[in-house]
Amino acid sequence: MSSATVETNKNGAAQNLMEKAPWTDEQGIAMKVYNGIAIALEIFVLYLKMTATFLHSIYQFFVPPEPKSVNGEIVLITGAGHGMGRETALRFGKLGGIIVCVDINPVGNQETVDLIKEQKGKAHRYECDVTDREAINALAEKIRREVGEVTMLINNAGIMPCKPLLKTSEKEIRASFEINIIAHLWLVQAFLPSMMERNHGHIVAMSSMAGVVGLRNLVPYCATKFAVRGMMEALHEELREDKEKDYSGIKFTVICPYIVDTGLCKNPKIKFPSLMKILSPQEAADSIVDAVRRNYHEITIPSSLYYINMICRTLPKAVPLYLKDFLDSGLEAHS
Amino acid sequence: MSSATVETNKNGAAQNLMEKAPWTDEQGIAMKVYNGIAIALEIFVLYLKMTATFLHSIYQFFVPPEPKSVNGEIVLITGAGHGMGRETALRFGKLGGIIVCVDINPVGNQETVDLIKEQKGKAHRYECDVTDREAINALAEKIRREVGEVTMLINNAGIMPCKPLLKTSEKEIRASFEINIIAHLWLVQAFLPSMMERNHGHIVAMSSMAGVVGLRNLVPYCATKFAVRGMMEALHEELREDKEKDYSGIKFTVICPYIVDTGLCKNPKIKFPSLMKILSPQEAADSIVDAVRRNYHEITIPSSLYYINMICRTLPKAVPLYLKDFLDSGLEAHS
Repeated sequence: MSSATVETNKNGAAQNLMEKAPWTDEQGIAMKVYNGIAIALEIFVLYLKMTATFLHSIYQFFVPPEPKSVNGEIVLITGAGHGMGRETALRFGKLGGIIVCVDINPVGNQETVDLIKEQKGKAHRYECDVTDREAINALAEKIRREVGEVTMLINNAGIMPCKPLLKTSEKEIRASFEINIIAHLWLVQAFLPSMMERNHGHIVAMSSMAGVVGLRNLVPYCATKFAVRGMMEALHEELREDKEKDYSGIKFTVICPYIVDTGLCKNPKIKFPSLMKILSPQEAADSIVDAVRRNYHEITIPSSLYYINMICRTLPKAVPLYLKDFLDSGLEAHS
Repeated sequence: MSSATVETNKNGAAQNLMEKAPWTDEQGIAMKVYNGIAIALEIFVLYLKMTATFLHSIYQFFVPPEPKSVNGEIVLITGAGHGMGRETALRFGKLGGIIVCVDINPVGNQETVDLIKEQKGKAHRYECDVTDREAINALAEKIRREVGEVTMLINNAGIMPCKPLLKTSEKEIRASFEINIIAHLWLVQAFLPSMMERNHGHIVAMSSMAGVVGLRNLVPYCATKFAVRGMMEALHEELREDKEKDYSGIKFTVICPYIVDTGLCKNPKIKFPSLMKILSPQEAADSIVDAVRRNYHEITIPSSLYYINMICRTLPKAVPLYLKDFLDSGLEAHS
C-alpha cells in the first residue's frame, strides 16, 4: 500500500490497524472474516430498516399522521402583515396558538393582530427589520420577557424581484439574499437554542417551487429559495446527527408554493388553469397549516408538483424541459 | 362558470373567447372539437420529442459527446491561486486556453500563472476581491482592454466555515454568502453580456455535494451551494426561454464535488474509503475540465453520487437517511 493510499485512509482506522499490527497471517485472516461478517450483518439490518421505513411511508401516504395540536404554542411569524403570513397567522390563532406577528410594516401587522383578536385568538405585534441581526436579537429578548419562549418559528417574510438578471440591480439582489435566506439564519440562531434546551419546537421556512426548479426572470430569487431548502436540510441533519443529545422533538417543514396571488407575482402566466391554477393566500395557508401540524418535511402547493418534480428529476435534464415548455407557465418580467 | 373561475382563467384566452363570443351552439361545438384535436396533436408531438430525447440521452450515456476544443478561449477562473482553481487553470492552459487568473491572494495567483507559463501556456494575473461589485466591474473593463472578451467564466472561489450553526459568527455567514454565491452573480452580470452578443460562451459554477444534500456543520455553506445550483438552473432557463434571440451557444456547467482535499475540509470522515475516497484537487480538476469540454449541465465528483442521489431522492426522505448513517461520512467541526 503506497503512502498516498495510507494518507487517504487516515480515517479508516480498522484497515490501518490491520496493516500495521504485528499479527500472524492466521490472525489476520480471522480478523478479515470477522470484519466481513460484521459488515454483512450491518448491511442486512440496514436493508430491514430501509424496507420497514419505506413500507411505513407508503402506509402514511394513504393514512396520513394525525395533525398535532398547536394550542398554547408560541408561534412567531415573519411577514405576518400580509398575504400568506397573515392567513397562516389567522389559522394558527384559531387553533389556540399564541401568535407573535413580526413585520416591518406596522399597519398591515396591526390589522393581522386585530383579525386574530376578533376571532378570540391571542396575538402580539412586533415591528422589526429581519435583515438587522442586532434588532432580531433585541426582539428575541423582548418576546422572551413579554410573551415567553417561541416554540414555533415561521420564516415567511420574502421579496421577489421579477426581471432578467442583467436588469436586476445590486440593491435588489442584496435585499433578496438578506430577506429571503440570511434573515432565516439570524432568526434560527435567536430562537433555536431554547427549543434545543427543551427538545420541543418547530421551524418552518417558506421556500418556493422556484427553490426546486430554476425559473426565468427569477435568477436571484431562485438562488435564495434553493438556499432555504439547503439550509433547512442541513440544519435538520445537524440536529438529527447530534450524538450528545436527542433533538427529535424539534420538527422542520419547508413550504414550496407555486404561484400564489399575494401581490408578489405581477404577471403570472398559466396555460392550463385547470391543471395548475393560481392559488389564493387562503388556500396556500390551509396547506401550510396542515403540513406543519402533520410534521411534514417538505410540501409543494399544489402537492401534485412534488411527484411531478420527483419523476422529472430522474429523467435526463432535457426531457422534462419539453414538458415545461408545453405547460408554458411562469412569470413575465415587470413592465 | 362562476366569476371566480373566469378570474383564475384570465390568461386562458381561448377558453374566455369561447365563453363570451356570440357564436351559435354548432360553431361552439366545432371550436371545441378543433381545440381538442389541436391539444391532442400537441401532446403527441410532445411525447415523440420526449421519447427521442430520452433515447438520445441514454445513447450519450454510453457514447459521450466529443470534448470540445478550448484553444484560444479566454478562460477566467476565480480563486485560481489555490486547490481546484489552480489545477483547473493548469489544465485549461495546457489545452490552449488564455487563462485569466483572478484571486484575492497575489502570491498563490502568481504561482499559478508561473506554472501555466512553465508549460508554455498563456496566463494573466489579476488581483480582485470578488465580493466587491465595483471592483469586479473595473476588473472586467481592464481584462477587456488588456486580454479581450472572456468566453469562459469559472466561478470557483469559495470558503467553507465548518461548525455548528449556533457557533457560526455573523461575519462567517455573511462572507459565505458574499463569496460563494453573490459574487457569482456580479461576475455573471459583468461577463455574460458579451457572451450573449456573440452567442458564444460557457459559465461554470462550483457547487458541491453540500449543494445537493444537507450536511451537518455546514448549514450556511449548504445554503450557498444549493443557491449556486438554483441560480445556474434559473439563468440557463432564462436564456433558453428567451424568445427574441437564440442563446444556445452559451453553455452552463455546475460542478458538485464531494470531499476534495484542498485545505477547506479540516476533519473529513470516511468510513469506506474504497467506496467514497477523499479526492485530490488534481483528480477533481480532471473531472471538471472533462465536464466543461463535453458541455455537461451538472456533474458530481465522484460521478456515482449523481445516480445514488437521484435514486435516493425518489424514496421517502427517511429511507436514504439510514444509508447516510451507514456510510457515516461527513465533516467534523473545527476544533
